[in-house]
Amino acid sequence: MRLRVRQVPIRIPGFRFAGVRCGLKESRKRDIGLIVSAVPAAAAAAFTTNRVKAAPVLVGIERAPAGRLQAIVINSGNANAYTGRSGLKMARDMCAIVARELRIDEHLVIPSSTGRIGVPLPRRKIEAGVRAACRALSADGFHQALEGTMTTDAFPKFASEGLVIDGREIVIAGMTKGAGMIAPQMTPTGSGHATNLTYVMTNAAVTLPALRGALRVALPQSFNAIVVDGDTSTNDTAVLLANGVAGNRPLTTRSADFAALCGAVTRVMTALARMIVKDGEGATKVIDIRVHRARNRRDAERLADTVARSPLCKTAFYGGDPYTGRIVCAAGYSGAVFDPQKLDVYFDDVQVVRRGEEIVGKVERRAAAIVRQPEFTLTIDLHAGAAVAHRIASDLSVDYVRFNSDYRT
Amino acid sequence: MRLRVRQVPIRIPGFRFAGVRCGLKESRKRDIGLIVSAVPAAAAAAFTTNRVKAAPVLVGIERAPAGRLQAIVINSGNANAYTGRSGLKMARDMCAIVARELRIDEHLVIPSSTGRIGVPLPRRKIEAGVRAACRALSADGFHQALEGTMTTDAFPKFASEGLVIDGREIVIAGMTKGAGMIAPQMTPTGSGHATNLTYVMTNAAVTLPALRGALRVALPQSFNAIVVDGDTSTNDTAVLLANGVAGNRPLTTRSADFAALCGAVTRVMTALARMIVKDGEGATKVIDIRVHRARNRRDAERLADTVARSPLCKTAFYGGDPYTGRIVCAAGYSGAVFDPQKLDVYFDDVQVVRRGEEIVGKVERRAAAIVRQPEFTLTIDLHAGAAVAHRIASDLSVDYVRFNSDYRT
Repeated sequence: MRLRVRQVPIRIPGFRFAGVRCGLKESRKRDIGLIVSAVPAAAAAAFTTNRVKAAPVLVGIERAPAGRLQAIVINSGNANAYTGRSGLKMARDMCAIVARELRIDEHLVIPSSTGRIGVPLPRRKIEAGVRAACRALSADGFHQALEGTMTTDAFPKFASEGLVIDGREIVIAGMTKGAGMIAPQMTPTGSGHATNLTYVMTNAAVTLPALRGALRVALPQSFNAIVVDGDTSTNDTAVLLANGVAGNRPLTTRSADFAALCGAVTRVMTALARMIVKDGEGATKVIDIRVHRARNRRDAERLADTVARSPLCKTAFYGGDPYTGRIVCAAGYSGAVFDPQKLDVYFDDVQVVRRGEEIVGKVERRAAAIVRQPEFTLTIDLHAGAAVAHRIASDLSVDYVRFNSDYRT
Repeated sequence: MRLRVRQVPIRIPGFRFAGVRCGLKESRKRDIGLIVSAVPAAAAAAFTTNRVKAAPVLVGIERAPAGRLQAIVINSGNANAYTGRSGLKMARDMCAIVARELRIDEHLVIPSSTGRIGVPLPRRKIEAGVRAACRALSADGFHQALEGTMTTDAFPKFASEGLVIDGREIVIAGMTKGAGMIAPQMTPTGSGHATNLTYVMTNAAVTLPALRGALRVALPQSFNAIVVDGDTSTNDTAVLLANGVAGNRPLTTRSADFAALCGAVTRVMTALARMIVKDGEGATKVIDIRVHRARNRRDAERLADTVARSPLCKTAFYGGDPYTGRIVCAAGYSGAVFDPQKLDVYFDDVQVVRRGEEIVGKVERRAAAIVRQPEFTLTIDLHAGAAVAHRIASDLSVDYVRFNSDYRT
């Protein structure tokens, strides 16, 4: 699935951006991104739950809990993951250069890296690149910064929303990158955990608890709900920055407009997460997997995850085959508790399994037509309780394997 | 990986076999298999843990706990899974025909089915086929019966061992089938759980507790240890039959020869399980994944399973790429508790990660040469305790996806 997206201009008052090339990628594309707020911004962040955390994630986990950040410096082409102490020093040094060049507090800068795992970052290139990015900052640099974060992405991923709060124009805009190694393991807690590199910025004034609340609402519905290959990265990072230059009264969790903010952040992050699936390595389809009436949420999520990760289900989707047997089988081994004789399955609005038995006849042709589409919904109704779950998954294609067996060579 | 295996003749005293064709497969190969003992045999059995159980498995679960069986009737080409009440009746009727034709007790016969899920078995073909198999029984029919169980298997899978107990010649021989939908979820308990269709026969006299003990020892080291795609079938069945016609004093768990029996059963079943991986759909490699010094067995198994199922690790293996970063990353999200700075990783005897850092230099070329081989061992040493785990996994190839996206069409 390769889309061309027009680069609509994105400006967020009080934020500047830059993207430059320092030579980390063979593709000769931009490999350094920089996001800077004019003033220290309220910051909510979430990082990977992977026990092996990349150096920049370790630095982010140190600095983000303070709740204030002013800059994010990103490199692509090299993940600076499992690179030992020198990698950690490199991650700190990236921030120090930004702090020095821009005369801001080093502890208000966090780094991100994405790309090849286990290779040291080339110090000279990075230093020159980060300095060049500091000089290239511009209110119109959003798309250049985004390009600086991209690795195997086939298209740039961004989304924005507008709101009016206290009569002030509020912009909420975000960028994300990622195509493979996608299986978020997030918990919707404080400065919890997240996936891939995602940065959402707003000019609204928001208190730290409200900003963290908004991230906690948005994550499970967006990046928490997507599965490409079931591999959870060492580098996943999501940051939500609110610099307050709009001058509204700071939003709290009790403000009348808090729900509007949460809604906008969630819509932006869900749009971004969906683009990640659409661009999943080799993906040809986006499948919404919905589990209804599970015994409890854990069962619902288990089942949705199992189907979203099952190679046999994913290859059937790729083949455009409404092979309900594989779905029923995956439900069976998911660990969810249900009565197989009550199971209902639907592709979009076409029921294909009723009370545990496949419906034969005309339905099959209609189901096949649905599964051949680039997007469809698979609904599994367990009749075992009231819990639901939703996952957004890609299929598993020949190109996924080709691409990932040939990443380095 | 496509092997030609010469069909060495296999005879097990007191057992007869048949394999016939009744037209369930397009390939026009044999699709009915029949295994019959001259006398009721002690029987230990294990079935899938999938909540959705195929009709023949439901019948097997009813009958196997009695511990005595005389015949197994198998069809391939159709799994008789999620086929409702009529499927269950069909599974019983397959047994009833065998019982009537051979004048044995219907409750001493169990059915097995494998193939397409969710399609009713064609009654007439099955009835004619099962009757024909009863008439074709022969002491030399082992390979015909085995062919009758095969579906996507590229080669027949069988193994045998000889023993002398009480001066009597004991034969232990088994057959198995399977290539995809392989991720056993077994528990080493009584008449527990197993994978795929596996039948092991011996002419030894063995008490039921000893026979069940032997299965309990053999399963975790054989079918419990293999992963092809991580999908656990609805039809998995393993049966161990001992008909006692050798005339030895019945082996108990306290017999001096019990360990020899366990050893032989384990070797036969491990050889069979390994063949399943070698023949994994699209597989080009067999990888032994060994986890050392985990905090506990659960952690060790989790980590071994995570690597065995990780699409990114499996595609790297396919590509012949010793991409240790993906292995370290998978270890990190596996849930196993360990210190990333103590992690050691080896391909065969070549260490590639030491104390959490990749070893660079000559080692890389040696590691690459190992990963390009058709079989190699990946060892992950956590330095976190004393628990170990072992998995035998296939890689993930372009052909796996091609094959499984095109199974029905």
